[in-house]
Parts: sequence; C-alpha cells; structure tokens
Amino acid sequence: HFKCLIIHENYDQNKVEFLRRKIKYFFMNPCEKYHARGRKPWKLILQIVKIGIITIQLVLFGLSNQMVVTFKEQSLTTFRHLFLKDYVDGGMDTYAVYRQADVYDHIYYIIEQFELLHNITVGNHAYDKDDAGISTPLMLCQEFYRNGTIYPGNETFDIDIHVENSEMLSVKITFVLKSINLQTVRHRELPDCYDFFIAITFNNEAHSGRIKVDLENDVDINECKEWKVSGVIAKNINLTVLFDCVIIITCLTSFTLCVRSVIKGLQLLNEYTEYRSKHCSQDMSWSEQSEFINSWYILIIISDTLTIIGSILKIEIQTKALTSYDVCSIFLGTGTMFVWIGVLRYMSFFRKYNILILTLRAAFPNVIRFICCAGIIYVSYCFCGWIVIGPYHEKFRTLNTVSECLFSLINGDDMYPTFKNIKQKSSLVWYFSRVYLYSFVSLFIYMILSLFITIITDTYDTIKQQRQSGLPTTELVKFLSACNDLPNSGLYRLDESSDCFSDCWSNR
Amino acid sequence: HFKCLIIHENYDQNKVEFLRRKIKYFFMNPCEKYHARGRKPWKLILQIVKIGIITIQLVLFGLSNQMVVTFKEQSLTTFRHLFLKDYVDGGMDTYAVYRQADVYDHIYYIIEQFELLHNITVGNHAYDKDDAGISTPLMLCQEFYRNGTIYPGNETFDIDIHVENSEMLSVKITFVLKSINLQTVRHRELPDCYDFFIAITFNNEAHSGRIKVDLENDVDINECKEWKVSGVIAKNINLTVLFDCVIIITCLTSFTLCVRSVIKGLQLLNEYTEYRSKHCSQDMSWSEQSEFINSWYILIIISDTLTIIGSILKIEIQTKALTSYDVCSIFLGTGTMFVWIGVLRYMSFFRKYNILILTLRAAFPNVIRFICCAGIIYVSYCFCGWIVIGPYHEKFRTLNTVSECLFSLINGDDMYPTFKNIKQKSSLVWYFSRVYLYSFVSLFIYMILSLFITIITDTYDTIKQQRQSGLPTTELVKFLSACNDLPNSGLYRLDESSDCFSDCWSNR
Amino acid sequence: HFKCLIIHENYDQNKVEFLRRKIKYFFMNPCEKYHARGRKPWKLILQIVKIGIITIQLVLFGLSNQMVVTFKEQSLTTFRHLFLKDYVDGGMDTYAVYRQADVYDHIYYIIEQFELLHNITVGNHAYDKDDAGISTPLMLCQEFYRNGTIYPGNETFDIDIHVENSEMLSVKITFVLKSINLQTVRHRELPDCYDFFIAITFNNEAHSGRIKVDLENDVDINECKEWKVSGVIAKNINLTVLFDCVIIITCLTSFTLCVRSVIKGLQLLNEYTEYRSKHCSQDMSWSEQSEFINSWYILIIISDTLTIIGSILKIEIQTKALTSYDVCSIFLGTGTMFVWIGVLRYMSFFRKYNILILTLRAAFPNVIRFICCAGIIYVSYCFCGWIVIGPYHEKFRTLNTVSECLFSLINGDDMYPTFKNIKQKSSLVWYFSRVYLYSFVSLFIYMILSLFITIITDTYDTIKQQRQSGLPTTELVKFLSACNDLPNSGLYRLDESSDCFSDCWSNR
Amino acid sequence: HFKCLIIHENYDQNKVEFLRRKIKYFFMNPCEKYHARGRKPWKLILQIVKIGIITIQLVLFGLSNQMVVTFKEQSLTTFRHLFLKDYVDGGMDTYAVYRQADVYDHIYYIIEQFELLHNITVGNHAYDKDDAGISTPLMLCQEFYRNGTIYPGNETFDIDIHVENSEMLSVKITFVLKSINLQTVRHRELPDCYDFFIAITFNNEAHSGRIKVDLENDVDINECKEWKVSGVIAKNINLTVLFDCVIIITCLTSFTLCVRSVIKGLQLLNEYTEYRSKHCSQDMSWSEQSEFINSWYILIIISDTLTIIGSILKIEIQTKALTSYDVCSIFLGTGTMFVWIGVLRYMSFFRKYNILILTLRAAFPNVIRFICCAGIIYVSYCFCGWIVIGPYHEKFRTLNTVSECLFSLINGDDMYPTFKNIKQKSSLVWYFSRVYLYSFVSLFIYMILSLFITIITDTYDTIKQQRQSGLPTTELVKFLSACNDLPNSGLYRLDESSDCFSDCWSNR
Repeated sequence: HFKCLIIHENYDQNKVEFLRRKIKYFFMNPCEKYHARGRKPWKLILQIVKIGIITIQLVLFGLSNQMVVTFKEQSLTTFRHLFLKDYVDGGMDTYAVYRQADVYDHIYYIIEQFELLHNITVGNHAYDKDDAGISTPLMLCQEFYRNGTIYPGNETFDIDIHVENSEMLSVKITFVLKSINLQTVRHRELPDCYDFFIAITFNNEAHSGRIKVDLENDVDINECKEWKVSGVIAKNINLTVLFDCVIIITCLTSFTLCVRSVIKGLQLLNEYTEYRSKHCSQDMSWSEQSEFINSWYILIIISDTLTIIGSILKIEIQTKALTSYDVCSIFLGTGTMFVWIGVLRYMSFFRKYNILILTLRAAFPNVIRFICCAGIIYVSYCFCGWIVIGPYHEKFRTLNTVSECLFSLINGDDMYPTFKNIKQKSSLVWYFSRVYLYSFVSLFIYMILSLFITIITDTYDTIKQQRQSGLPTTELVKFLSACNDLPNSGLYRLDESSDCFSDCWSNR
Repeated sequence: HFKCLIIHENYDQNKVEFLRRKIKYFFMNPCEKYHARGRKPWKLILQIVKIGIITIQLVLFGLSNQMVVTFKEQSLTTFRHLFLKDYVDGGMDTYAVYRQADVYDHIYYIIEQFELLHNITVGNHAYDKDDAGISTPLMLCQEFYRNGTIYPGNETFDIDIHVENSEMLSVKITFVLKSINLQTVRHRELPDCYDFFIAITFNNEAHSGRIKVDLENDVDINECKEWKVSGVIAKNINLTVLFDCVIIITCLTSFTLCVRSVIKGLQLLNEYTEYRSKHCSQDMSWSEQSEFINSWYILIIISDTLTIIGSILKIEIQTKALTSYDVCSIFLGTGTMFVWIGVLRYMSFFRKYNILILTLRAAFPNVIRFICCAGIIYVSYCFCGWIVIGPYHEKFRTLNTVSECLFSLINGDDMYPTFKNIKQKSSLVWYFSRVYLYSFVSLFIYMILSLFITIITDTYDTIKQQRQSGLPTTELVKFLSACNDLPNSGLYRLDESSDCFSDCWSNR
Repeated sequence: HFKCLIIHENYDQNKVEFLRRKIKYFFMNPCEKYHARGRKPWKLILQIVKIGIITIQLVLFGLSNQMVVTFKEQSLTTFRHLFLKDYVDGGMDTYAVYRQADVYDHIYYIIEQFELLHNITVGNHAYDKDDAGISTPLMLCQEFYRNGTIYPGNETFDIDIHVENSEMLSVKITFVLKSINLQTVRHRELPDCYDFFIAITFNNEAHSGRIKVDLENDVDINECKEWKVSGVIAKNINLTVLFDCVIIITCLTSFTLCVRSVIKGLQLLNEYTEYRSKHCSQDMSWSEQSEFINSWYILIIISDTLTIIGSILKIEIQTKALTSYDVCSIFLGTGTMFVWIGVLRYMSFFRKYNILILTLRAAFPNVIRFICCAGIIYVSYCFCGWIVIGPYHEKFRTLNTVSECLFSLINGDDMYPTFKNIKQKSSLVWYFSRVYLYSFVSLFIYMILSLFITIITDTYDTIKQQRQSGLPTTELVKFLSACNDLPNSGLYRLDESSDCFSDCWSNR
Repeated sequence: HFKCLIIHENYDQNKVEFLRRKIKYFFMNPCEKYHARGRKPWKLILQIVKIGIITIQLVLFGLSNQMVVTFKEQSLTTFRHLFLKDYVDGGMDTYAVYRQADVYDHIYYIIEQFELLHNITVGNHAYDKDDAGISTPLMLCQEFYRNGTIYPGNETFDIDIHVENSEMLSVKITFVLKSINLQTVRHRELPDCYDFFIAITFNNEAHSGRIKVDLENDVDINECKEWKVSGVIAKNINLTVLFDCVIIITCLTSFTLCVRSVIKGLQLLNEYTEYRSKHCSQDMSWSEQSEFINSWYILIIISDTLTIIGSILKIEIQTKALTSYDVCSIFLGTGTMFVWIGVLRYMSFFRKYNILILTLRAAFPNVIRFICCAGIIYVSYCFCGWIVIGPYHEKFRTLNTVSECLFSLINGDDMYPTFKNIKQKSSLVWYFSRVYLYSFVSLFIYMILSLFITIITDTYDTIKQQRQSGLPTTELVKFLSACNDLPNSGLYRLDESSDCFSDCWSNR
C-alpha cells in the first residue's frame, strides 16, 4: 500500500515540519486544541447552546400546535355529531347512504340543523358574515351527467360527459362557521378566532348504489378582531419572533464557522497535495482526500440551513403572512434531527464510543449495497403480490400498501392477520398466497436479516483488528506519525512555529 | 483436489489455446464482451426493455382490475344493505337468524325489497331480462330431507337422505341484477356493463338452531350493447392487445436468445469434456459441468415462458373469450417477479455486490436443509396442537390455521392473543397449552432462528476466505488461468484467432 | 484425554476384534447393516408404517372432533340468542344486569322462552324427559345469606355465612335440552344425539351492584335410541376400533424391538466395560457409557407408550365407556409429536443434515442453563410488575398474565398496547411502568436474546472444528478406529466372524 | 501488565502467607468456606429463608389487593351504568354530549337516578351520612367565565378570566356512596366497608361544541363499625403484622451481615494495599480495588433496605395510618425483584453458569455505551416525528407516545397500523412519513440491533479466551496463585494458621 517511502533529502525540512504540525492541529479535538494553542472551544460552546435553543424552540412550537390540533379534532367530531344523522363515533369509514329516501332525509337534516345551530350547539359557534354583515348562506351544489339516460336493463346508455343536470354524481353542501378557542385563556394566553369551512359530500360517482357521505373541515386561524380579557397577559408574539431571530443568528454564526473550517481543510488539502506531488510519484486517492473534509461539518451546515429556512417560515406563519405549516415543520424537524445526530461527534472523541460509531459508519455502505439487492427481490414480490392477491386481500389493494404489508411482515408484525384475512373465494389464489407468504417470510427473515447481522459482525471485526494492529492505514497517517509532539507540549503555538523541527529531530 | 496437472506435450497447443479463449469469452460479462469482440450488448438492452414494458403492462393490468374490484365490493355492500334486514357494516360473520318468525320476516323482506328496487336504490340497478324481454324472476329454492321426522325428545329420527320436502336444510334466493360502472367515464373510458348474480342463502344444515344467512354475488362483465357517450375517447381494446403482442414478441426473442446461449454453453461443455477426457484421467464433477449452464439464463427462460402464457391469456380475457382472471394474474405476476429477480444478475457484475449474492446462493442449500429438519419438529407441534388445543382455541381449529398461528409465533406476532384466547374450561388442557406454547416459542426463536444466523455467518466467512486466498477452486479455473489476455487486448476477435498462442507464450 | 494407550499383549486379540466388530455393527445405520449382514431393515419399515397409520388415526380423530366442536359452539350461540334478552354476538364479556327491574325481566324472559321453545327455535330442540315420560322441569335456584341484614349507610352488617334465604348471592337457572346433529348425515354417517345441560347464572357474590349473567352448556353425546335413515351407510364403529387395535399392535411390536435394542446396547456396554477394566486402569466416563444407549430408541419407547395408552382411551371413548376426551387427546397428540420428531433420526444419517441436528443437541444444555439464569431475572420482573403495575393494567392483573405479557414483549409482540393501556391515575406508577418496561425490553432483547445467538454460534463452531480435525474424541472412537472394514466387505457376517482379525492385520 | 514481579526477600514471609490465605478464604463460596474452616453457611440459609418469606409476603399482599381492585372496577362499571344515560360498556372514551338539550337531560337523569338509588341498584349501596345522621347531599358545581360575552360571528369577545357565572366551563356533580365488599366473606375473612367518592364531570373548557362527560370514583376503605358474622374466622390483622415484623427482622439481620462482610472486605483491601505499596512501586487500579467489594452484597443491602421500608409502610397501611399503597408496592416490588436477582449469585458458583453471567456483566457497559449513541439518534427521530407527523397521526401526538411508538417499531410491533393510520390530508407529510418510517426501521433493526449481537458475541469470545488461556489477569490473581491449598486441606483453620507457610513451600 505505501509506496511513497523516499523523501527527497534536499526538500526544506522546516517547511515539511510546519505543514505536518498544521495538519495535526487541524485533526485535533477541541480539548486538544485548547491545550495546543490555548484556543477556547467557542465553536463547541456555540453548538451546545444551539442544541439547547433549537430544542426549546421545537418544543414550544410543538406544544402550541398540539393545542390547535386538539381543538380542530374536537370541532370536527362536534360537526359530525351535529350535522350527520345517526352518526356514531368511529363510524365515518362506513357512513354511507343506500336508499333514495335516506338521501333526502340526510340533506334536509343538515339544513335543519344548520338553521337551528344556535339552539343546539353547546360550543361558541356562529354563522359567518360578509363585510355587509349578511350571513354567508349554506351552499348546496349538485353534479349531474348532462342529459344522461341509463338503462342497465337493456345494457344501453347515453351520456354527455359534461356534467350538468341529470344522473346525480355528487351533492356537496358547504358552509362556514366561526368559533373561538377559549382553551388558551386558561393558560393565560390570548385566544384565537377560527373559521371552519365545512364541506359535506354525498359521493355517487361509481353509481354502485352506495353513496358515501363525508364531512371535512378546513380551518383559518386569525387573531380576533376585538377582545377584552381581564387577567390575561397578552400573548406576546414579538417575544416569540425575537427568539426565532436569536436562533437564526446563532445558526448563521455556526454556519459561517463551519464553512470557514471546511475552507481551511481544503487549503490544507491543497498544501498537502502539492507536497505529495513533489515528493512522491503516487497520486492521492479520493478517500485520502476526503479525510480533509470533516463530514460532521457538512452535517452541521445542512442542519443550520434547514433550521434557518424553518425559522424564517415560522416567523412568516406567526405574522399570518403564510400558512404552510407542514413545510415549516419539515424544515424545523429535520434541522433539529440533524443537530441532535451531530451530538454523536462529541461522543466519538471518547475511544470506546468511537468504535461503535465507526462500525456503524463503516458498515453503512455495505448495508446500503445489500439493501439494493434485497430491494430488487422485495420489489419483485410486491408486483407479484399486488397483481395476484390484490383482489382478494385488503392489504394488497395498492402497491403502496403491499410494500407496507411486506415490510411489516419482515419485521414480524401483523403476520397472522395477513394470513387470515384473505378471502377464500378462489382456492387457486388461496394456495398461491400460502406459498407466497411462507416463502417471502422465510427468505427475508431467515436469510436476508441474518445476512445483515453477518455484515455488521464482519465490519466490527475488521475495525477492531485495524485498531489492535496499530499499523498506519494511509499515507497521511504515516506522514503525521513522524511528529509525536503532545498537544500540551507548547510546540503548536503559532508564534514559536520554528522550534518543532529541532524538537522532532531530538525526539528521534 | 487438482490431480490433472500434466498436459500431454504432443497435443495441439494451438487448439487448446483456441478452446481456452472461447471458454473465457463465454464467461465474460456484456461489457467485457464488447471490449473483446466489439459485440454490442443487444441481449442486455433487450432485457432492460423487457423489464420496462412488462412492468408497464402489469401496472396497467393491475390498475384496471383495481377499479373493477372496487366496484364489485361497493355493489356487494349495497346489496347487503338493501336486501338483508337490519344489516350492519362488518357484521356479516355473525349475521344469522335464530327464531322461526325471523326466518319468514327476512325472506319476505328480501322479496319486498326486490320488488321495490327501482324506488329504493340510488345506483343504476335494473332487473335482468331474457331474450323475449321478460324479466327473469327471483328464485326461491328450499332444500328438505324427504319424509323426515325427528324427535330429539325420544332420541329417535327417521330420515330419507334424498333431500325433498320436509325438515328444511336450506333456503336459497337467487336473482340477477344489471348495473353499469360509470366510474370509468370519468377517466374518459367507455363504461362496462355488469350482471350481478346474487345468491342469498339461509343455511340450516347442522340443525343447531342457528340459521346462517349469507349474501354473495358473482359478476359477469360485458361490453354494453348500445352506447352513446359525448366527449369520451372510445376505449381502444386493440391498442392494449397490440401492446400485449409486442410483449409476446419481445419475450419470444429473449427466449430464443437465451436458449441459444444455453445450447452454446452445452457445446462448449462438450468440447471441454472431450479435451479433459483426452488429457486427464479424471472425470468432470457435476458441479464443474453445471458451471457451463448459466442459471440466470434458465431463470430468464422460465420468466419468458410464464409471461408469454400470461399475455396470451390476457388477450383472451380482453376479447371476452376467457374469464380465468386468476390464472392469468398468477402467470403474469410470477413472470414479472422472475424478470425482476433477474436484475440481480447485472448487480453481480460488481465485485462488492457479488459477495452478498454469492453468500445468499451458497447458503441456500444449507438453509433449505435446515428448514427440512426444523419443519419436522414444526409438523409434530402442528399435529399435537391441533388435536389437543383445537377444541379450546379458535386458531387451532384446523391444521392450516395451526400452521399459520405457529409460523406467526416464530416471527413474534400475535403471541399475547394466542396465550389469552384459550378457553379456560379444561384446566388440564390449559396447563398443557402453556407448556406447549412456551416450549415451542423458546425452541424455535432461541435455538432454531439463532442457528439460521450461524449458518449464514459461516457461509459468508467461507466465501470471503475463498476470495482472499485467490487460489483456483476448480480444475476449470486453473485451465483458464493459463491465458491472461485482457478483454480489450484484441486477441479475442474471431478473425485473428491464431495470435493468442504466441501472445500467451510471450507473456510467460 | 486419552491415557489408555497400552494394550496388553497377552490378551486374546481374536476376542478383541470380535468385540470391536460387534460394537461397530451396533452403531451402523440400517443401510450399512443391510450391506454388512444382509439384514433387511424391518425395524425401519415398521417405523415408517407406524408414522403413517398414527398420523392417519390422528387426522381422522381430529376431523370427527372438529364437527362435534362446531355443533357445540353453534348450539351455545343459539341458546344465548334464545334465552338471554338483548344478547348481541360477542358481547358475553360485558353482559350484565345493573338494576333490580332488569333482574326480574331477564329471569321472566328465560322462563317464557323456555316455555315457547317449540314455537321459536329453528333447530331440533326438545325438552328432556325422565323415564316416566315426564319432561324434566326448568330449575331456578337462589342462593342467599341466611338472615343477613346489611346497612352500608351505618357501616354495619350482620351476616350468617350459611347461605339460605335473604341477601341474594346468585340465581342459577338450569335445564336440559335434547338435540340431534344432522350434519353428519350429509357425510353419509349416522347422526349423534346430544343432551345439552344449560346453566344460566346471575352472579351477585361481590354485591358490587353488577350482576354478571353467564350461559354455559355441558354436553352428553349418545347414540340415538331409534333411527331409520335411508341411503346412509351405518357408521361402523367396529372398523374404527379395529384400526385402533392395529395401531396398538404396531406400537407394541415397535416397543418390543426398541427395548430389545436397548438391552443389546447394555450387554455390549457390559462387554466393553469388562474389556476396558481389564486393559486400562481408567474408568469409563458417564458420557462414554451413554453412547451405548441410543436416545432415539428411548424417544420411540416413550412415544409408543403414549400412543398405546391414547389408543386404549380412544377405544373406551368410542364405546361410550369413558368421556375423558382431553386426556386421550393429550396422550395421542404427544405420542404423534414424538413419533414425528423421531423422523429426525433418519435425517441424521445424512452427513450435512447431521451437523445441524448435532448443533441443536449440543447447544441444548447450554441454552437450558442460560434459560435458568434468564428465568430468574424474568421471575423477579414478574413479581415486581404484578405488585406495582397490577392495579393499573389489565395485563398485569394475575401472575400468569404478567408472565405471558412479558414473554410476548421479549418476542416483540403487543408492545405498544402494553405501553398505552396503563391507567394514568397515579403518575408515580406511570413513571415506574415506563422505567420497568423500557429496562425489561432492552435487557431481554438486546442482551439476553443476543447471547442466545452467541451460544449457538459457539456450539456450531466447536462441532465444525471437531469434525474437520477428524481426531478421535473419545476412547471408544479410538478403539473402533483400529478396524476399517467397510460394511459391504462381508466381514461382519456372523458365520465368518474369525476373518476380521487377519484382515485388519493386513490392512495396517 | 504485571510489573510487580520482585518480592523483597527481607519481608516477613509468614505474614504474607497469612494475608494470602485470608484473602483466598474471603473469595471462597459458602461450600468451600465450610470445608476450609467448618463454618456453617448461616448466611446462605438466611438468604434462602428470606427469599421464601419475602415472596410469600408479596403474593399474599398481591392477592388481597387483587380482590380490592376487582371490587373497585366492578363498582365503577356499575356507577357508570346507573348514572350515565345510554352508557355502553367500553364507550367511556367517546362518551360526550353535543347538544344543549342533551346536557340538561343528562344532568336531570343523574339527579333522578341518585334519588331512586335504593329502588334501582342490585348492590349494597347507601347514601353517606354525616355525624348528625343527615345524608350528605349530591353537589352540583358549575364553573363559568365571569361576565363573559362571546360573539364568534364578530370575532370579538370580552372575558373576565376569574370564573364565576356565565359561559359555562364545566359542571361537576359529586356525591358519596357507601358499600360493603361481601366477596371476602366467602373466603372466611371479614368484609371491608367502602366509601365511594363519585365525581361526574361535564367538561366544556375548550368550547369546541363537545362536552366530554367523565365519571370517576375515589375510594376510602375502612373497617366496618359494627359487624356480626356467623361462621367467619375474624380477619386477624395482628397475624399479618407479625409476619411483616418477622420479615423486617430477617432483612435487618441480613443487612447487618452483609454490611459486616463489606467492611471485612474493605479491611482486607487496606491490608493488601499496604502490602502492595511496600513491595511494588505500582499503585492498585480502581478495578482491582473493586474486586474486594462484592457487588452481590451491595445488591442484597439495597434489596434489604427497600424491603424494610416497604414492610414498614405495609404495616402502616394495614393499621389504617397511611394510604399510600403505590409507594409501598414500589418498595416491596423492587425489593423482591432484587432479592430474586440475587439468586443469580448462587448460580454463578457453578462454572458453566458463571460464564453466561460473566458475559452479561462484561457486556453491560458496552451495551449501555451503545444505547447512549443509539439513544441520541432515537431522540433526534422522536423530535422530528413529533413536530412533523404529530398533527396527522394519533401515535405521534405527544413526545411520550412518539417514543413508545418508535420503541415498539424497533422491536417489530405495530408496524402496519403505524404505516396505515396516518391521515392522508397532506401528501407532503404523507411522503415524509414513509421516508421517516422506512429509514427509522431499517436503520435501527438492520444496523443497530445487529450491532448489539456483535457486541455480545465479542464479549463472550473475549471471556472464553481469557478462561482457556488460564493466565492470571490481575496482580491479585497472581499473588493468590502462589498458594494452592485446597479448601478442605485444613490449612485455613484459624487456630493453626502458621502451618500454611511450610505447606506452600513443600508444594513447590
């Protein structure tokens, strides 16, 4: 492996030593850097502070959302109970109408309940009013096939696909209700005002004789126009925005520092490459070059970027400029996730923790490689199961659920129900499904999962042996091993950089 | 292992070199073949195209079936709601009648609903008519034991097993309804006409006092007789059939090419065997011979055969000549599955992926062997559980469910419910069941599953060591290793075949 | 290990050779024995026949029971629907009465339904009659505390524990109904007559205000007194009994042969021990001695004993002399289980299968040993969970369910429900339960299950190395290795026993 | 490792031998100690007795609690059926009121039922009376916002947060019922008197239109004031208290003995440290010092402390001085758990069991270390899942349930339901959730769980090799190995302590 053994005698040894020391300093951990040059670990402190405040921001954001979600869900349940005839909790999936008389009954019931709302509801519900103060009405829209006449008896039909006024496709009843979430008052916060856009749909698109009824609500959350609450500390949005700004500034600082470190690494790489190209014929491999780019810094840069974008979105949402809550939560969530994973970096400074992290990292490419192979067999089973068992099993109805079902089977979940719930109409498919399921589970659990363990074991052994042998594994390690100065030897200080040469010499 | 070391001097070395080069070329991958003889990898391209179009065919077939299945299911739900008195969603399993008055009520209700159908249903349902235009009637058939008189009080009975007119065995009400699936119109396709053959059965065969009521429907799907739809692009069946034909042709081509390759391999095997029999006393082993028959080609041949049969069946179904949807889907499904598994072949060209595939293949016989041993213990537990626990536990009622239940237990599913749901009537059986379940799970999870992992680990180690040692493992490898020409050396070109001899000579 | 190296010169070499050959013959498999002495493998054939007929017997027994169980269950459902007011399928667990008026209503309803039974039921139900032809009446028994007066308001009570006539403890309504299972007629068998002993219990023992209502039925199955069925082949009990007798005879033969083999082994052991005591000072270890007792024979002897007892019980049951179905099924079931496990013996004759079986057998003591250690930690968790979490979690109510729940958790079942279903009344217990569950699962899955795998891996490696080294592992193996005669060498034939000596001599 | 090789010649060899023998004796197991000095294993016997009586105490405590819990649960069900209109078993989670009229209906129904209680209930329920004999009334408390006026239509409100008399927040109905648990009479024990404090809450805090109704009961258990039961053996509380006292005394004794042993160990450590400091320059490592402190004794001391505290609390509860049942059960439960785990100590005296226990103990730090690393990734996934998927999935609603859900996923539970139950409102979040779940499960099951197995395997191999090599691993072992006297050599007896020196000399 190590062909670059002869160092040209006439090269400036002083310069080499200087480079060597610079690279060694670059690879030190914060504690060693402190001992070497007395540099305070500001970057480490910044990261720890960042983890703290980002987590606090996330938790506050999450808790306030939790309350909103609860209120929305309770309101949805309420609307279903108020407007759907004979609605029973949890029965939304099978809530449907099968008779002509029932269709009219259900529609009249909704209209009647809407009119009587104030005398019925136990919540703070009110009709929406337009700017002129007139209540916005309940809207009932019907979709029909234009001029359609259908005679299933004669197997003849005559349909104009442009939907207009006969052969009902669907009925949609929509109206707006206003409400106030008073729950927050109990937490000494200002309550929000909600506009619920309620849509009740009678869906008859298939004309199968079953009209599915659905009630969904969309929500607009606004600050209430006028309010007067005694004893409440006004919800200070400014404070929250300020906190978000602090986070943005922290992340920007962290981002800048990490980018600087990456650039420093690239400069060092350049210097070292130059040195190498002068002294050895051999080129540097890609893996050797990548050692100069700390992957942890890349992770921090990504997480900072995500958190900054997320925080900006959050400010926009809080000032009611945007409503894309989902996008914001994905940015903040993944940002926080990466920040936390970054903590592993500090654990890897301890020798015993390091071997575990190293094993995981080293095994990663092999596992990914293996997942590719297993994935192809998996996909082939997905297609086959979908097309053959699909019509006879709820879980095999779409490619997505097939994949989820098979994935659960691999991990030992929901096996008996999967076996059991197949419809026994076609005995051919039934026998096929047995072969299919037994073979899939056996193949994946007994062979493929076992192979995963083998891959990890193998990687662990390799890394452990590398460690115990103590031999330099790369040209770079060999280059650095020429200088054995300890961090606290004082030789790394910048102002006395010329001393190392003699020191190393005397060490030999 | 390698006894055939002396090559007779007086053999035509030229001929040997030619054979050696031919075999080496045969074992090359498409890329090397291109470098060696400039042969474009048509076969590879054909396979990739095949995977693409077969997958598209499967997805289209699956999506169109999905719509049909949904419509059939919705119709079934509708019929149950329309014709079964007090039917509740999901209650089909316990839907039964226990009183004489209820039997008549339910039957009259069905007849009444059938008569009023047009005024009730919200779907496109119509009565079936015969060719003369007269509606096919609702049929009510009763099965009785002829002249049976049963006196359970006296423990006496007198039954003529030929079923005729007393002691009701079952009542079966059947009728036909026509419907049109308008859902497809929304996707700009022509709708189909459906004939639903509905059968409602009152089953009293056991005379246990519980008459189980079932409603099932069979479906005939036809093209509608007359139709006039504005704005709809006519569903072009011809186009689909054309696409199927393209697939059949592609598969036939692939089939032919693979058969040719297999034959070429057999010819080479013959030549090599002849050479071996002349030069060495030792016979070739079966495993050495099998190396000339590429198992991937066999897989492709099988998958092509399955896909061709499946596609022909599909054409038959689409032209309404056949209705065996299940058989067709099994052929197409397994065909596509094998095509996808064949992709692994192309992954095995990469060295790092290859070790994983090789491990799986090498471990396969051992795993199968072990599953046989474990299977016998498994079968013994199945029999024992079925006979002892069967009467006290729903899951142990039939041998099939026992097997499914135990298989789920091995993989860690449904354990607590299995423990819990045993009826506590007989304490002896209860204690037996605890011993049975604890011992089964411990034996299989702690010993047998662990042994699987050990087998895989062992195989992986063996293969890794074989690789690292780099020693020739078979006589064939040794024979081939005499010529080290790289694929792009130009020596494999057919027109200059005589040069290799000198080249190999000079290489030594 | 091997101290017994010097064989005394003056010992009769002829005799030693004879013993050696006898022992070698004893350890041969049936195929080798056939080659050695031409002995037909009658014992093997007998075992195979036995497996066949025992499995057939079990399947027939199971199938006939299945029908009985189905009829009993359907009848139970029927009785619940007929006699319990407002009974809903699957609602037996929560079927209870909470008001005084309801108690009377439910009791009157039962009596009324019982009187009207003939006009209501759709099954073959009839009242039971005593020998004089008078219907056995419905019995209503009430249990009271004698002279009890309870004033919860004053926290005073005065109870005579001898139950008599006030403060109702329970009401029990019992009656007998007769029925005939006509299902069997369809299978061309004679139907059986059933006596259902129905007991409806109103249980108020706790006086908590909730009276639990239960309906259970016991069954007596008799041959019907008089019958006349046209077209039915009479159920030939004699044939079944004959078949059982064949099985008993087969098992007895197999039992005798195996006992003989065990005795032969013991005789050989004696001879060998004598030889050893004369030639070597060293005593034989227990493990060496146990090699002469084939554990497979012991297994066959046990399975034969169980099957014989089971078959005798089955004959008794079929001739209506006994009704202990459960005991019979346990004997037959475990008997059949052992017979099947015995099949592994024949697989172990193949070298590659043998290593797996050997590993399992060798790892067994270590696994058992380890289960003991793990079991103690398990028991300690059981006690702790029961006492602390019991009052707040359904699954931790009894020690038995705690054990089942923890066992399921180890194997990855029902984890989320276990976490979720704890009642959040006491936050202290709630936090304790989190610590308890997380620590239990982590300890058992991540440490103990992993150790199982390690134990098996270690055993497998040990056995594999023993094999590959090929060194004699016991004194016995060394003794036998002196004679290398192949089974088909003809030297094992009894009439020419003196030839082996010279043959072995010349082989050296 | 072993630098301390030269023992100074002029040191008193006699004294060294004496120390050596004392340390060897200290490390002996009870059986060896008996052989060495004839000391009866009183401590062992005490521990065994302790395990027995502590387990009996726990079981008795558990069984008596089980009966109380059952009675409380049955009473709660009864109260729900009596006081909640249209209550259905198991429907407490969705029991709510949505209309104004229903609120009044439900309240009036409760009051009416309370008045009629004596004519309705089938249990021993009575109103509570104060000391003057007047029934304590039913209390109905309403919470309102003072002067609140809310106009959701105008998005204006005016609330005084001090709750008083308008805008209903909640209605709470409370009353007390007395009852007597007669179940115990059947077990020949005295029954207890119960005071149920029943609280029915109509919760309208969110004003979402859904008023959740809850019925909870708190219980006070008292000895009944007056009682007269014929045939009952009076529940002898004194006997139970006596038994608890016996346990306290046993634990105290065990505690004292173990503390003494620990002190003895520390003294020996001192002596040995002194010897070491005199003869070797090298200091003792922390791990070497810790060998003198037997961790099993620490475990016993902890378990004794817990059991003593638990038993004292239990006595207080039984004499009605305290009611903190939960605290008591936690102390008793964990105490008993540690006592049982302590049994492992006696198993570790057997060589083959010891290796398993040693492996578990040696792997423990590595597993904990690894769980820390994995825990950080786990926490990062928790935060991310909570914030992003929370609003769309029931299980991701709180951080606690997210953690439980992910933990279950790792162990292969509830995977399919987790995949399935996400609401498909936002397709962005839906796709995110797929990536999130697939990546989490793959990472944790395929990489991290596999690494656990690798860690355990590695530890097992290390310990096995240490054992087989037989080399002294610490300075202490080397020091002790100089004297090979067997326990039953008689040389450990205290009165003849001077003989060991000569004996060891002659042994060499």
